[in-house]
Amino acid sequence: MILVIKNDSQKRQLDNLVSWIKSLGLNVYMSRGENSTILGIIGDTSLVDVDLIRSLDIVETVKRISEPYKKANRKFHPDDTIIESSSARFGGKNFAVIAGPCSVESEEQIVSIARDVKKAGATALRGGAFKPRTSPYAFQGLRADGLKLLLVAKEVTGLPIVTEIMSVTHLDLFRDVDIIQVGARNMQNFELLKELGKLDVPILLKRGLANTIEEWIMSAEYIMSEGNARVILCERGIRTFEHYTRNTLDLSAIPLIKELTHLPVIVDPSHASGLARLVAPLSLASTGVGADGLIIEVHNNPEKALCDGPQCIRPQQFSDIMDRIRVILPLVNKEMCF
Amino acid sequence: MILVIKNDSQKRQLDNLVSWIKSLGLNVYMSRGENSTILGIIGDTSLVDVDLIRSLDIVETVKRISEPYKKANRKFHPDDTIIESSSARFGGKNFAVIAGPCSVESEEQIVSIARDVKKAGATALRGGAFKPRTSPYAFQGLRADGLKLLLVAKEVTGLPIVTEIMSVTHLDLFRDVDIIQVGARNMQNFELLKELGKLDVPILLKRGLANTIEEWIMSAEYIMSEGNARVILCERGIRTFEHYTRNTLDLSAIPLIKELTHLPVIVDPSHASGLARLVAPLSLASTGVGADGLIIEVHNNPEKALCDGPQCIRPQQFSDIMDRIRVILPLVNKEMCF
Amino acid sequence: MILVIKNDSQKRQLDNLVSWIKSLGLNVYMSRGENSTILGIIGDTSLVDVDLIRSLDIVETVKRISEPYKKANRKFHPDDTIIESSSARFGGKNFAVIAGPCSVESEEQIVSIARDVKKAGATALRGGAFKPRTSPYAFQGLRADGLKLLLVAKEVTGLPIVTEIMSVTHLDLFRDVDIIQVGARNMQNFELLKELGKLDVPILLKRGLANTIEEWIMSAEYIMSEGNARVILCERGIRTFEHYTRNTLDLSAIPLIKELTHLPVIVDPSHASGLARLVAPLSLASTGVGADGLIIEVHNNPEKALCDGPQCIRPQQFSDIMDRIRVILPLVNKEMCF
Amino acid sequence: MILVIKNDSQKRQLDNLVSWIKSLGLNVYMSRGENSTILGIIGDTSLVDVDLIRSLDIVETVKRISEPYKKANRKFHPDDTIIESSSARFGGKNFAVIAGPCSVESEEQIVSIARDVKKAGATALRGGAFKPRTSPYAFQGLRADGLKLLLVAKEVTGLPIVTEIMSVTHLDLFRDVDIIQVGARNMQNFELLKELGKLDVPILLKRGLANTIEEWIMSAEYIMSEGNARVILCERGIRTFEHYTRNTLDLSAIPLIKELTHLPVIVDPSHASGLARLVAPLSLASTGVGADGLIIEVHNNPEKALCDGPQCIRPQQFSDIMDRIRVILPLVNKEMCF
Repeated sequence: MILVIKNDSQKRQLDNLVSWIKSLGLNVYMSRGENSTILGIIGDTSLVDVDLIRSLDIVETVKRISEPYKKANRKFHPDDTIIESSSARFGGKNFAVIAGPCSVESEEQIVSIARDVKKAGATALRGGAFKPRTSPYAFQGLRADGLKLLLVAKEVTGLPIVTEIMSVTHLDLFRDVDIIQVGARNMQNFELLKELGKLDVPILLKRGLANTIEEWIMSAEYIMSEGNARVILCERGIRTFEHYTRNTLDLSAIPLIKELTHLPVIVDPSHASGLARLVAPLSLASTGVGADGLIIEVHNNPEKALCDGPQCIRPQQFSDIMDRIRVILPLVNKEMCF
Repeated sequence: MILVIKNDSQKRQLDNLVSWIKSLGLNVYMSRGENSTILGIIGDTSLVDVDLIRSLDIVETVKRISEPYKKANRKFHPDDTIIESSSARFGGKNFAVIAGPCSVESEEQIVSIARDVKKAGATALRGGAFKPRTSPYAFQGLRADGLKLLLVAKEVTGLPIVTEIMSVTHLDLFRDVDIIQVGARNMQNFELLKELGKLDVPILLKRGLANTIEEWIMSAEYIMSEGNARVILCERGIRTFEHYTRNTLDLSAIPLIKELTHLPVIVDPSHASGLARLVAPLSLASTGVGADGLIIEVHNNPEKALCDGPQCIRPQQFSDIMDRIRVILPLVNKEMCF
Repeated sequence: MILVIKNDSQKRQLDNLVSWIKSLGLNVYMSRGENSTILGIIGDTSLVDVDLIRSLDIVETVKRISEPYKKANRKFHPDDTIIESSSARFGGKNFAVIAGPCSVESEEQIVSIARDVKKAGATALRGGAFKPRTSPYAFQGLRADGLKLLLVAKEVTGLPIVTEIMSVTHLDLFRDVDIIQVGARNMQNFELLKELGKLDVPILLKRGLANTIEEWIMSAEYIMSEGNARVILCERGIRTFEHYTRNTLDLSAIPLIKELTHLPVIVDPSHASGLARLVAPLSLASTGVGADGLIIEVHNNPEKALCDGPQCIRPQQFSDIMDRIRVILPLVNKEMCF
Repeated sequence: MILVIKNDSQKRQLDNLVSWIKSLGLNVYMSRGENSTILGIIGDTSLVDVDLIRSLDIVETVKRISEPYKKANRKFHPDDTIIESSSARFGGKNFAVIAGPCSVESEEQIVSIARDVKKAGATALRGGAFKPRTSPYAFQGLRADGLKLLLVAKEVTGLPIVTEIMSVTHLDLFRDVDIIQVGARNMQNFELLKELGKLDVPILLKRGLANTIEEWIMSAEYIMSEGNARVILCERGIRTFEHYTRNTLDLSAIPLIKELTHLPVIVDPSHASGLARLVAPLSLASTGVGADGLIIEVHNNPEKALCDGPQCIRPQQFSDIMDRIRVILPLVNKEMCF
């Protein structure tokens, strides 16, 4: 961490600051120039409150050299973390595909789709029970009943299930969920993250609509700081001025995330664009860019889907995408996990 | 609502769609052109799930003509809503200023600041007890203890208190809070909004970092749809590519919000820029643009503030801003509420 | 085009509007509802000035159904346009790669790189002579001398050359340039676009930093409206709040562009991220998403490059990327052009 | 400027870098830590090419401490620059208002509006002759004929005229223009900026749609570096995800610009929102935030305006805004210039 000290600071103030930094177990190196004094702070600065330092009277600017996260940081865990849930494996050489409908609608629907996607090579089943909707008047999901139907589909197919939690108060209902998803709108619901950090279940953490890569990793750090190290990141598009697509999928984030952290990161091409016909090209692109997997919306009757139908593809299209992905995987040193 | 129907649609499909729309109690007008057929849907379309319609096979595009919100909509409530809490009044001709520290730190601190801001003309006291922080390692607020200290300051000064809630599970602790704040990061925490909609207490709803004006009003609609009509909106800056300021304060939103809704809307100039020296100019600008009030961070010792110090101003500066605001108020047909 | 007419409009005004629209050779269909009147305008609305209509007293909103561009529109030219320059072919089943240094620095440098990239499979040589730099104090390119060196490299290798024009006044210098590039900052330099529209040479039109897909196609339409139909589009990243990468590469734009227009569209993975180590993953992603080619910065000594060194890769890395791209091409029904 | 040197750098490379920096007339201070070495460069770093340094093999990151602009920098010119054109004065205690129609349409129109706005207190007349339009099919302005009509209005009223240039090749036509405007789309048309830098006429430099404050000042620096120090900055809104307004007016930029530079900065409330009914509130806000003036679109018949009608106000509304502005000016230590 580098601090630039204001020109008009008094020696006493500077001495106090240096003493205080040293008291945190950190070392300080000082460069005095004619117009500015620069302090270099060396050591584990992830525990330093950068806002507090910035607020000090004598500090002009603060620049971090090292990242503000530690448990998620690849520097301290050079090897890829591999997260397993039944036969699904995320990270390392594994490429895992989660598929299923936007919303669980009925037992027949979810079981039928589960069978279809398993046959095409998916290793986990997604399905929304609690649905975050912009309008209070829109369909909010089957909620607790939807969770029960997902468990039926799991029983029938053996696929682990992935579904979104929207409130700490629903935690009891999620006891048998294999991978708990935190949606984009709750990425900085810190109280929820802390509670999920106390569980021993993989958390699929989606990137917020307008969150930086650093903030996203910090939210993973919230979960990990409470003890749960099994975090899977999921890029799903960010909000920009472009409105032809619902969001702008940020694929550059994937190789960057893999440099910065040891956690697996997958891509959601369905929500990113909101257009079914973009799912195939974005899935191939995500594979080529080095993602650890995909989460794809598949419906056996997209026109009748109760929500987000326009971004759903059919099982046959899903199967075709899977076939093409398998050709790309060796180029990025990956294998389809099944 | 206008639907453009695909060219290759079959008559049977179109007839089905028209029947279904009429079954919702809405009227349909049809324009058949050579290349496209257009349906105009007339009636209360706020209850229609636009995503569901968009997902239909024969629909090319859907465009709303009327807004998707109803209870918050000025069309159905032409008069300004005025929300009162003790002597504070938001909306109509009233201009109300909430002031106080970012975080509650001690009884001495909060009581002293409360007295100072009351003297300068503030009608409510703000103070953070539960603090949403990007890093799990940063100071998270005094939490329940902070709420108790706020109640002491209320007891001493008579000022109603405004503080942020971060989880449904904390609701019991907020029984005596006068105005409950929902922070930017929880603007789309829909389960929290629904619970707050069941209370009879004013809710200060901050705009999310990357949320559109329409989404923001829809979040107010979530609260109102459960019965609580006392929602105060608060603009606090949106996220853009510009990084000299922490956020970009969107003052154009204020007159638009007042056209679209009957709810009061105030501005937070402190969080918008993150720079204390911008609080005064942005406060004057917010007054000139027609806001119903301000929420300003004031600290008696900004350099020692435990969080967000750089954006805090001192009581003397606050008092000076209040004096200048009073000159502008008659130009926008407002009066300082006290 | 759909017009929503204000409720309080007088019949005479509406009649005038309808007459005027018909005088433009367009048909009008009217739906009168209780609360609003809707006009559907059918015909070639690309020639209608939407701002002019929006400004009329009786018009509440205007929504285009059809696109405001015509010559670039796939609806009127269903087949892919294929643009040739020597052996380079852009569009259709062709995949063409342009490679070369950010800036031309010396004859030795440009000839050596030209040979290297040709050997690895590039079909055109890029190299900056006129360089748009944010600072007036930064290196501005070798300018006219740089163009001469590019022509030497073309002479030696036979590769067509691609280089950026920054001013109408330089047009004479560009007589022998095979493909003239318009940079992101000049995407809406309309006077320059019009002049380029009078030439018979392919134009590589980069997307502006903050331009929508529609604005980008409209800039292609500017060139085409003057007679030059040989426009190649190039996605190079848009500006967002994320700052770990210089720009956010918008790969979803590629399949959308190919739906909306018949023009070829390529990707610049080097400028998009500004990081050399992201060039390989973003090149594979761009190929998977269906782009018609790539433009990649290659330098034989990136550390010594006079500008934009951090995003340059070496010839050996370039050759490795080309090998991997060839595996993906059959999946997207493309062939490497050489 | 601070350089963080990579851990694995060799002593010889570091020595070479230090020597090279010193050869530029700069001083270097070095802090060696266990994990990183930090170089502080002291002196006039505005002439250093930061991209070149970043590209060096041994450099991990570069952070500027001082700004990359010099002539525009308030540090080197602490006093406000005041720019005069006839009776209009921009900067210092002056508040100057430019008003007039979006486009010049006829002699009668421009002369009539010029008289109206002069009467209401405007000190300069704006009017578009060359119009940058997204579509090649939209009205492009009266061009050279429009300039002639502006000169007639100047002759009649004595108001200096402000109008936009779109190409270096039109410079001859602008001989008698008092203030030459560079539009948002040409803010980084560097070849145009350089030519304008050779003139002795005030340049009104609008902020680009997606340009940072720093890039904007750098474009002023381009003009100033060629000798023309008379640059007036103009904030007109930036592009964000919010689409209810055409752009998001960034009023926080005003006090920041005035800290960073000594140049005057005015606001365009008309183009910022694109809505006539927002012009009054945004004008009051701009005055309160400390701008040096305004540029407002006024039309005597907005419904008939050939372009951008929806954002035009009438002379009577303009006069009313001016009256309210005069009340705010003393609060920000300004006087209306006339």
